Amino acid sequence: MEYRKIKDEDDDGGTVSDDIENLKGKGFPGVAAVSNVPPREQVKWKRKTIVTLALTFLTSSQAILIVWSKRAGKYEYSVTTANFLVETLKCALSLAALARIWKSEGVTEDNRLSTTLDEVIVYPIPALLYLVKNLLQYYIFAYVDAPGYQILKNLNIISTGVLYRIILKKKLSEIQWAAFILLCAGCTTAQLNSRSDQVLQTPLPGWIMAIVMALLSGFAGVYTEAIIKKRPSRNINVQNFWLYIFGMAFNVVAILVQDFDAVMNKGFFHGYSIITTLMILNHALSGIAVSMVMKYADNIVKVYSTSVAMLLTAVVSVFLFGFNLTLAFFLGAIVVSVSVYLHSAGKQQR
Amino acid sequence: MEYRKIKDEDDDGGTVSDDIENLKGKGFPGVAAVSNVPPREQVKWKRKTIVTLALTFLTSSQAILIVWSKRAGKYEYSVTTANFLVETLKCALSLAALARIWKSEGVTEDNRLSTTLDEVIVYPIPALLYLVKNLLQYYIFAYVDAPGYQILKNLNIISTGVLYRIILKKKLSEIQWAAFILLCAGCTTAQLNSRSDQVLQTPLPGWIMAIVMALLSGFAGVYTEAIIKKRPSRNINVQNFWLYIFGMAFNVVAILVQDFDAVMNKGFFHGYSIITTLMILNHALSGIAVSMVMKYADNIVKVYSTSVAMLLTAVVSVFLFGFNLTLAFFLGAIVVSVSVYLHSAGKQQR
Repeated sequence: MEYRKIKDEDDDGGTVSDDIENLKGKGFPGVAAVSNVPPREQVKWKRKTIVTLALTFLTSSQAILIVWSKRAGKYEYSVTTANFLVETLKCALSLAALARIWKSEGVTEDNRLSTTLDEVIVYPIPALLYLVKNLLQYYIFAYVDAPGYQILKNLNIISTGVLYRIILKKKLSEIQWAAFILLCAGCTTAQLNSRSDQVLQTPLPGWIMAIVMALLSGFAGVYTEAIIKKRPSRNINVQNFWLYIFGMAFNVVAILVQDFDAVMNKGFFHGYSIITTLMILNHALSGIAVSMVMKYADNIVKVYSTSVAMLLTAVVSVFLFGFNLTLAFFLGAIVVSVSVYLHSAGKQQR
Repeated sequence: MEYRKIKDEDDDGGTVSDDIENLKGKGFPGVAAVSNVPPREQVKWKRKTIVTLALTFLTSSQAILIVWSKRAGKYEYSVTTANFLVETLKCALSLAALARIWKSEGVTEDNRLSTTLDEVIVYPIPALLYLVKNLLQYYIFAYVDAPGYQILKNLNIISTGVLYRIILKKKLSEIQWAAFILLCAGCTTAQLNSRSDQVLQTPLPGWIMAIVMALLSGFAGVYTEAIIKKRPSRNINVQNFWLYIFGMAFNVVAILVQDFDAVMNKGFFHGYSIITTLMILNHALSGIAVSMVMKYADNIVKVYSTSVAMLLTAVVSVFLFGFNLTLAFFLGAIVVSVSVYLHSAGKQQR
């Protein structure tokens, strides 16, 4: 229900500059000039906080569902069909939200579903990047095991920061860069286990693939933000609809390539359980939360949010599954906490 | 020879305020007013850098000598006699330096050896604190093993920071506090090994003793700085002489209590080797470097210097002893490096 709450606050549009360069984390100067600034800023801050908390909550429950489903047994269902359903559900939710807006406000330039080639041509790119990244994922396991891959995935944090700087041309202060390096080091520290040192023995092709995957993932995230922020007045649900339609299309391709036989012989919903359903629902809501964070905050907030979610997941798992917290986890959690503080303290420097 | 170089730069005295409150890391305002400021600042900066580098170098070679001596076999000599010789050597070096100064400058109010009860009465306190801490060290091993104790020793970093703030009333900026917490977390991370998690099972009395020991050690360091800085114009070699004389006295007590039989039966120098001699020489020079850092820099610089030395030791040990660096070490080293940067960046904030 988080989602509907967020959406309702999105009704105060306004024509603003189309140029992403003018945004630079300062909000929409065009709107600020005509409306009463403090309440507007307050609404923006509130909205940013709500989407960030929603993303953190959904990401941690997502990880907990994954642990739960693993405990319940191996994945029996086709992952590609589940991914397709996630995209479909996101699309349906975006349409439902739009229908409600059309009813209350009527169809406007900003919330109409129809689009131009100029607007829509960039929307398949993030979905395509994720597809390439997911394909690479099958090959990297020739060089590194699953826990090692979890460690290497923290390179995403650095790649997102670097691409955020290069592509969106937004600046981080020196303190904020230091905080970002700490976030990466802290998350990795928190995930250390007795076999982590094997990661250092990863052969060069494995490192190159890990870096390429981090760049693809970072680029997809940053590019999504660029697309969404390019038209700040455009309703987020329309933007989401177009993002998810291409997500659906690419997942149809994935089903045909990877799981065509399984789906034909055993059926589309073969192996689905109550956990599978919950996971699909959770993934869909998380996906929408990510889009909201891109619209009302940025990729940096997204990275912090998912990192803090990782720590929360571990703490919750202690109670739910009797996991033990390691000294490395505590040290990593301290470093991540200091990083969050420094990111906020470093703002003044900018 | 580092020591002599440092000492030679100490010849430009000057009567300055006796009040430690007036120092607050700003140097000696009295002197700055009468001499040409930039070269004076340059000399101070150069001196601070040299003593810091000397301490870092001596501390890392100290740890390497300890590893070397352990590889060569168990400690065969009485540790208390070695400690006594360290104090004696430091005393002798301070006197030699003083003799040279008396020859070139004559005996002045600032470099005369004779003292007043008022000046000398505080000098036994650091030596006494270290004695109590070393006695406690025998009892803590009932609760925690040696590698666990190494981990808990990092609490010294936090206790030094807190006592530095409370006793010397010097301020650290918020960024510098964050950096200090990171230094502690980073050093601990760098020392993690497969058995580190046992530290979390340390029973409460073990934790209390570790915290008391950290406070004693931090207090001894901060109190030494307070003593040395209380009389900024007083020659450091005189101050060292009085510190080390009491160090000698307390170590005589330690020999009598702990190793009286061994010394009587096997002789004072029983079990001494070339490594033992090098270790005594190194400890003496390190001790003098610590005093110099207290005089020309502060406890915070000392903590950073010894922490960086710990990292250097590990890297050098890879080449000397074929040690392997762990992923935890790399992560800890990154966090410590960022901490060093933040400490310096945080100065502007103050």
